[in-house]
Order: sequence, then structure tokens, then C-alpha cells
Amino acid sequence: MPGSHIVSSEGIYSGRLLRLELLQVEGPDGRRREREVVRHPGAVAFVPLLEEDGQQKVILVRQYRVPLDKEILEIPAGTLEEGESPLECAKRELSEETGYRARRWEKLAEFYTSPGFCDERLHLYLACELEPLGGNHPDEGEFLQIEKIPLEELERRLKDGKLADAKTLIGLSLILCDNNKIKSL
Amino acid sequence: MPGSHIVSSEGIYSGRLLRLELLQVEGPDGRRREREVVRHPGAVAFVPLLEEDGQQKVILVRQYRVPLDKEILEIPAGTLEEGESPLECAKRELSEETGYRARRWEKLAEFYTSPGFCDERLHLYLACELEPLGGNHPDEGEFLQIEKIPLEELERRLKDGKLADAKTLIGLSLILCDNNKIKSL
Repeated sequence: MPGSHIVSSEGIYSGRLLRLELLQVEGPDGRRREREVVRHPGAVAFVPLLEEDGQQKVILVRQYRVPLDKEILEIPAGTLEEGESPLECAKRELSEETGYRARRWEKLAEFYTSPGFCDERLHLYLACELEPLGGNHPDEGEFLQIEKIPLEELERRLKDGKLADAKTLIGLSLILCDNNKIKSL
Repeated sequence: MPGSHIVSSEGIYSGRLLRLELLQVEGPDGRRREREVVRHPGAVAFVPLLEEDGQQKVILVRQYRVPLDKEILEIPAGTLEEGESPLECAKRELSEETGYRARRWEKLAEFYTSPGFCDERLHLYLACELEPLGGNHPDEGEFLQIEKIPLEELERRLKDGKLADAKTLIGLSLILCDNNKIKSL
């Protein structure tokens, strides 16, 4: 049975961040169907792990998210800029959003956030051996609060369903699952 | 400092699945900025856990995803239909996509897939004590292959970065992390 393939694509909207396209797709049955697709430049996110007061803590950001019209707690993240590598982007965002830099970066995962309708690909890292740079300086129009939360407390929140953001769930469960990773830090 | 709030919203596109809106948002600094927002009806996904040949296996689906123009492997999922509760939707999708029904459902998590630009909220379940119904029957226009993969093999793929879908990473890492959950099944 032959696979599905894209027959044509029509641009509906092209904005600051997103593009919306209407695609004609031919399925294995030979029929054509219309699909709405959101094009996204891709993003990075990272778990900044810090040793403070004899505890392992993660730096999270609390910020207002326009689509939800409320604040939520997430690991720091950012959108890829043109020509920027995912790791360069992560380093820039760590410094801008938290005011730290990391001596060690480790790739945790790479995944599509919602492949049914969008091509956004997210690169996820662990950032450790952090050094303060002297204050954060978020992008123009970005308003966020930093929270340093002990890893043990985050493990509880993960199990209790208190974390509402996909990349945050993935980053925290990957490092909490892998005990060897935590012990070796 | 007062928070951010939405001042106005303009509909750009309204399609079969998605709506695109352009929002004017006033920040804590009093300035107005424009934000592109994708409205999504919400979705469900679930980890169908099966005992077969003395092994615990998960039923995954391999399907062509239009935004990526390729096939990927994911846990079964579906979009909420109007008036449908998340659990009803999960039961319907389990039967349509895999040809099984579950005697036991457990909520694992609820999260936003990409809260920076989209309001999609995903309800994630564990489906266990599965019974075959006699063949799957996907929706019109949906072409997918079922793969039953041992939990041990999925644990390796999770650690090796071989899984490329956010909800699949969350579902599998939540059940693999929580050894008590697996043992009690």
C-alpha cells in the first residue's frame, strides 16, 4: 500500500512567529483530503539544576501565557532565532531568563510538541554547574518570575499532577527517572 | 505590578480543527503587543498496557503526520469532539485505533502541549486490563499501523532518545518512573 503524500500547499497566514498552511494530502486510498498545518521555527527548553543550601534545586519560570490567559510554571524555554543552533539558543535563554550560565550542558531529548497539526520540534537539555551572571534580563515584552524549587518538591508535584506544561513534565521526569543521572551530577 | 491582560482579539482563520487569532495584550509595563494564538479543541492520549506472552507491552500507533511529512510512532491519541468528555473520547479512540477496550482507566496527567502559542490541553490516561474487540476501525482518512512493544524495549528507546513525540515521552516516563504503578497492575 503506497503511503500518504502532500499534493499542494496554500499559505493562509504568515506572522511574526507562526505560519498557517492548508495542505492537500493524498492518502493510501488515493483520496485527497485537506489538512490545516501550523509551521513553527522550533524551540529549546532546559532544566537548570542548581546546588543551593545543600539541596538540588531547579530554576523554573512563572509567566503569563497569552493563549491560556493565565500564569503557569515552566522550565525556561525559547524560540529558535534564524541561523541559531539549539544549544546557542539555550545558552542565550538561560542567561536572559535566569541570570545564570552553565558550565555543563547535556542533551536530554528532542521531540515534536503536537505532531497532529504543528511541526514544532523542541530540543531539551539539562544545564548544570551553574554560575550567577548578576541578574536576569528578559526580552522586551517578556515578564517572568524565577522560582528555585527543590528537586524533591518537584518530584511530589510531578506525581500529584501539579505541573501543567508538557516540556516541564518531560524534562523533570527524564532526570528524576534516571537516578544515575542525578547521582553523577 | 499589575499583570498582563488581553485587550482585544481578531479572528484570522477558522477551520475544521484550528482557529488562528491575533490578540492585543497589555503588559505590566502598560505597553500593548500583538500575539498570534492558535485555538485547539483539546485532545486525549493514553498508554494501552497489555499482558502478552508473559510480557508487559504497550500498544503504539505508527502513522503519517502531515506537518512532518513522515511517519512517527506515538501512543494512541485523538481530538476531543464537541460535548464529549475526555474519558469518553479516550474510550472511543482506544476502540477505533487499536480494537481493544480497557476494564481500567487511570488518569496520568493533564497538560498544555505548547502554551507559548497554543491553548491545546491534553488529557493523558493509562488504559489497562485490555480485552480485544475484534479488529480496529480507524476514522475515515486515518491510516495507522499498530505495534505492540515490550515495556523494557520502550524503556531503552526512551533513554536512547528514539521517541520523538511529546505525549509519548510523558506517558511512558510517568509509568516507567513510578515502579509501584507498574508492579500493582
